[in-house]
Amino acid sequence: MPRFFTAEVNGDKIITTGEDARHIGYSLRMKIGDEITFCSGGFEYICKIEEMNGSEVVSGIVEKRPTESEPTVFLTLYQAYPKSDKLELIVQKATELGVSRIVPFTSKRCVAKPPTEKSGTKRTERLRKIAMEAAKQSGRGIIPEVAEPMTFREAVEDMKRSEIRLFCYENGGIRLNDAGIDGEKSVALMVGSEGGFDRDEAELAEQSGAQLIWLGKRILRCETCPIAVSAVVMNLSGNL
Amino acid sequence: MPRFFTAEVNGDKIITTGEDARHIGYSLRMKIGDEITFCSGGFEYICKIEEMNGSEVVSGIVEKRPTESEPTVFLTLYQAYPKSDKLELIVQKATELGVSRIVPFTSKRCVAKPPTEKSGTKRTERLRKIAMEAAKQSGRGIIPEVAEPMTFREAVEDMKRSEIRLFCYENGGIRLNDAGIDGEKSVALMVGSEGGFDRDEAELAEQSGAQLIWLGKRILRCETCPIAVSAVVMNLSGNL
Repeated sequence: MPRFFTAEVNGDKIITTGEDARHIGYSLRMKIGDEITFCSGGFEYICKIEEMNGSEVVSGIVEKRPTESEPTVFLTLYQAYPKSDKLELIVQKATELGVSRIVPFTSKRCVAKPPTEKSGTKRTERLRKIAMEAAKQSGRGIIPEVAEPMTFREAVEDMKRSEIRLFCYENGGIRLNDAGIDGEKSVALMVGSEGGFDRDEAELAEQSGAQLIWLGKRILRCETCPIAVSAVVMNLSGNL
Repeated sequence: MPRFFTAEVNGDKIITTGEDARHIGYSLRMKIGDEITFCSGGFEYICKIEEMNGSEVVSGIVEKRPTESEPTVFLTLYQAYPKSDKLELIVQKATELGVSRIVPFTSKRCVAKPPTEKSGTKRTERLRKIAMEAAKQSGRGIIPEVAEPMTFREAVEDMKRSEIRLFCYENGGIRLNDAGIDGEKSVALMVGSEGGFDRDEAELAEQSGAQLIWLGKRILRCETCPIAVSAVVMNLSGNL
């Protein structure tokens, strides 16, 4: 059943306008009487389309139920800017796997040029759209938040919001199995760009309470690491 | 240090010709005296370049040691043909994560047109090249085998070579944590294409000894599933 996110639930109706309305009417060719799911505030609303014209779709709520597809762990991915369109792949896959928040940041070894204020806004908008599409497609109950880009220091500070903080570092550290991950605690995962992290950065992360994580002797590309580790965190917390 | 795979070790020398020799001389601009690693038959040979011309590189072996980067689990990935170039992404990521053998196969719900004999050969060659490049880059001790395409029945029969057989199925089954994966046993992992698997196919796989695996309530794209599950298998077997 097609799935949309909406901010507004008015009594027993959900009114859709703009791009979503066009998508329902034109791309999906849905008709009056068709079933459609809306997600809002942790609930799923199973609806039937009652009225539609080119710019507006009115759906009647048939059933309201708590979303069951959200993982029990709140996982934030802090990703250093990689080259080209790898961040788009990462946002898509992280969303499918159940990541709740994605924070791009710049670090010393980033090869990609840091975004300007203007290009950064455009890029963040694009990433948010990818997160929304992936959330719809994978049946998420929320759209993961894509945060505004941070500096490395800001990102390390921001990680303190999570109970468990993982810093992927090629020069050693503990294994994922020993990081104390379970379904009860929020997790922050920090991953470097193509060049990995500088020693100073690893030290700063460790000083502020992150655990340095070692992923073994095979070198994962910077886009493979967040996907692989997110999958393992979901598995270790009972969500995959 | 640059890493190459070679079939031929002659006493205390390794002689490289063809594309690899050109890559060493032109793309990497290596010089006499530079260090280079060759992998062959489960060993790593740390070498120094002794002679080189446009078409041949002669390297002297300085040290021979068993490869340490190979996982303890032998994981075979059976992947139903997905659309477009997703199989290339899957082969690359599976290689980085430590998969030892990749078997593409056709199944009922494959949307992608099955390759002809000619296009299949070309495609398999391309996938083998991707596996080799990813093996070099990620520091593998072997190049994973990319098998010739199989039918679904052939693939299910082939899975019997592994001790633990996992069949990813969206209509339920056991969880990965309950599949008995450890570092001691070989594992076969079967993943569907965009449309997943038919009920008949799931039954046939189960009858021939595969465990149906359920990955939870979020729907993973067909290229995300093999990457995520390979990562989890590596973690559960102590290899990530």
